[in-house]
Parts: sequence; C-alpha cells; structure tokens
Amino acid sequence: MFQLFIANKNYSSWSLRPWLLLRQLQIPFNEQLVTFEEGGSWEKFRSFSPNGQVPCLVDGDTTVWDSLAIVEYIAESHAKVWPQDKAARAWARCASAEMHSGFAVLRDICTMNCGVRVQLAEIPASLQRNIDRFEELWLEGLQRFGGPFLAGDEFTAVDAFFAPVTVRAKNYDLPLSPSAAEYRDRILDLPAMQEWIGDALKEPWREPGHEEELRRAGTIVEDLRQ
Amino acid sequence: MFQLFIANKNYSSWSLRPWLLLRQLQIPFNEQLVTFEEGGSWEKFRSFSPNGQVPCLVDGDTTVWDSLAIVEYIAESHAKVWPQDKAARAWARCASAEMHSGFAVLRDICTMNCGVRVQLAEIPASLQRNIDRFEELWLEGLQRFGGPFLAGDEFTAVDAFFAPVTVRAKNYDLPLSPSAAEYRDRILDLPAMQEWIGDALKEPWREPGHEEELRRAGTIVEDLRQ
Ligand SMILES: N[C@@H](CCC(=O)N[C@@H](CS)C(=O)NCC(=O)O)C(=O)O
Ligand SMILES: N[C@@H](CCC(=O)N[C@@H](CS)C(=O)NCC(=O)O)C(=O)O
Repeated sequence: MFQLFIANKNYSSWSLRPWLLLRQLQIPFNEQLVTFEEGGSWEKFRSFSPNGQVPCLVDGDTTVWDSLAIVEYIAESHAKVWPQDKAARAWARCASAEMHSGFAVLRDICTMNCGVRVQLAEIPASLQRNIDRFEELWLEGLQRFGGPFLAGDEFTAVDAFFAPVTVRAKNYDLPLSPSAAEYRDRILDLPAMQEWIGDALKEPWREPGHEEELRRAGTIVEDLRQ
Repeated sequence: MFQLFIANKNYSSWSLRPWLLLRQLQIPFNEQLVTFEEGGSWEKFRSFSPNGQVPCLVDGDTTVWDSLAIVEYIAESHAKVWPQDKAARAWARCASAEMHSGFAVLRDICTMNCGVRVQLAEIPASLQRNIDRFEELWLEGLQRFGGPFLAGDEFTAVDAFFAPVTVRAKNYDLPLSPSAAEYRDRILDLPAMQEWIGDALKEPWREPGHEEELRRAGTIVEDLRQ
C-alpha cells in the first residue's frame, strides 16, 4: 500500500494535492503526518524525503518526493488521474504545471491556513494578476470541457492542484466572478475536502512562522480552530 | 509538425529544456524564436502562449504552454523521453519536478546568460544549499543508474531539465566535485548544446533587465558574444 507523508493539514497546501487525489479516486493509502518544526523542517523531513519537503509518497522501495511527480507516478498504475480525452489531458497538465511553478505572489501573501479567515489590507496589483489568471484558467476549463470539474465531468489531478487555491480564495475572501465562486464552493464541499479541513481544525499545533504569515497579510477576522 | 515557441537562446533557460529534448531525440520541429521585450514580455507572448511565457509548444489545435507539460505531452507519442526502467523514471520525474518548482536562489542569482562569465562576489549560504542539492541529485542519479546520463545510459528529459544548470555552473564558475564537473561538461559538449550556445553567442539582442541581473550577481569576467 502507498504511504503518503504529509505535514499539518492546517498549513500544508502541497500535501493536500496528492492526498485529495488519492481520496477522490478511492485509492487506499497510509497517511503519515509529520508536523512542521519551528524555524524549518528540512532536517526532520529529510529522514524520509530526499529534498526535505512534503508531500512524499513511498511505494515499497520507491520514494516519490514531489507533488507533480507523485501524480504522474500514480497515473502509471491507476486510471482517472488525468482526463481520458487527449486535449483535456494536455490542458490539465499545463494548468497543473503552471500552478506548480507559478502563482508565487498568491502563495506568498495568501498562505494556506484552513482554520483562519483573514481580511487583506489591500490587493496589490501583482496579487490581482494571480487571481485574474487562476480565474481565467478555471473559467476556460469549465467552459471548454463542460464542467463541473476543471477538465470535464470527473475530478482529476488538475482539480487537486487547485484545491489549495479554493481554500485561500475562501479564507482571504478573494473577489471572484459567480462561476468561479461556484467552482470554489464545489471543491470545498467535496466530502474529502471537508474531511481534510475538519482534521485541520482539530489540530492542536501552532507553528509560529506560519501564524506570522497570516498577520503580515492582514487582519484576522475569525479563527475556527479548536 | 510541432512548433516550439522559445525566447532568446542567450537568456531563456526554460526554453532550452524542451528544445534540447526534441533535438536529442531527433524529433523534428519548427523553432519560433520571439525575443524578450524590455520591461516584460507578457503581452507579446500572450499572443501565442496562454500564460504569457515561453516555452510553448503548438501541435495542430493543441497548445501546451509549460516546459514540464510539454515533456509529458511529447512522452505520450514518443519513446525515450523518460527512462524505460520504472524506478529510474520515477526518480527522473521527481528530480525534474523539483527543478521545476525549486532552486529559486540559483535561478535568481545565477541567471542564465550563455555568453557571459561572471565571478560571484560571494556564495551566500542559500545559494550553496541549492548547489549542494543539485550536486547531490546528479551524483545520486549517476551512481544509481550507472551514467553517463542522470537516469542511465541515455539522455532523457531529466538531463534536459538540468541543462540550464550546467550553463550556470560553468559561467558562474560554481565549485563542483570532479564527478559533477564531468557531468556538467558532458552535457555542455553535446552537439545540440553547442548548437544552442553557438546561436546564443550570435544573437544581436541585449535585454536591459537580463543584463542588469548579471551585474547584480558579481563581476563580468568575459563576454563571448559578438
Ligand atoms: N515542489 C514541491 C513543493 C513542496 C513544498 O514546498 N512543501 C512544503 C510544505 S507545504 C515543505 O515541505 N516545506 C519544508 C519546510 O517548511 O521546511 C512539491 O510540489 O511537492
Ligand atoms: N513554468 C514555466 C516557466 C516559464 C518561464 O518562466 N519563462 C520565462 C522565460 S525563460 C518567460 O517566459 N518570462 C516572461 C517574461 O519575461 O515576461 C515553464 O516551465 O515553462
């Protein structure tokens, strides 16, 4: 059985991607949650992950240490990771890869914190460009492939890649068009997303670095964590 | 036939990856070189690439706009993009994905400029960590899969992903162990790399932003461009 190493569900946006994909495809796996260390987790995570980061999938002798590589690894042995249609699959891979190496400002300012609502002091132009771009991608995918998911009628890896963005969009109250807001809520309402967020809210750990990032972003409006 | 949109060979490290892979696999393509604009190329590149960036592959009706997605797209119809051995393939995908979303300091300080040698004022600890990590990856791959390429006896996409790093390592004279330096030179000596670098040296364009990055990094020791 796959072992999936992840970090705190409250904070770890990269971990959420393969976790959600595996849950949605009903692929069994052992979850190994290792908490972030104050000041950096590199040494702690290096004990299981070659680049000192999560997520990391272990399958017998094989270690797969990056979210996009994990997705391609799973796709080799399981159907429905990517859409069946060739054009939809190419699009889904492009959008996922763009997320993987891009959207730096969104990730930087609106760090994922499942349990906390933040009111941004302002939306700088660089952040607005990131918002415009993911909204453009969402609307393009939904329209071109017919919805309700980004690349068609089934949940695929590209939805998993944008799932952390739905959390950020909600918790930082990012302005979205009605269709984009509907998609955001469709993902947030998935039972597996509710499970992840529910677990996150129950976590007792507070990592000072991640908490500080919130205060830098704006005013904390609500903290739903226990 | 594939059309591959790239930017200036002298500067565009992302463009080099799929270009080199296509050349090495002897897959025919039309090269479409579009030069960088002073102050940002987003609008210019948007006319052919949905995210306003290069590289971008066009195959009939299908546009594939990210280097890693391009590689996976080509792999669907062409052999030898990734290694045949499953473990080597998983490793190659991890190392490529790590390059794709990581090594920010290396990319930031040692920007690719094929024609210019720079002496760094110092190697900050954050840059040294990036150097240590790519060297670790190179040595691991070479040892585990037997060389002379990163994932075995044939050139694959993971070598293409690290090809821009070999240019940076050479031109910024980054300190490497003998085996890593041998691998660097092995890639730089490939006829296709010599073709790319030769073309870069002949380019007449100087983009002020890219040139400024060099001066910020250290002292220009040699400019081989015409
Ligand atoms: N490219 C990686 C990025 C993973 C990443 O940045 N993970 C973060 C947690 S979400 C991490 O492990 N950080 C280590 C630390 O905080 O020391 C992937 O896609 O898997
Ligand atoms: N994630 C992209 C990154 C591509 C990228 O950053 N390309 C640069 C050139 S090397 C670019 O197009 N920059 C646009 C600009 O300078 O305005 C990929 O892997 O293809």
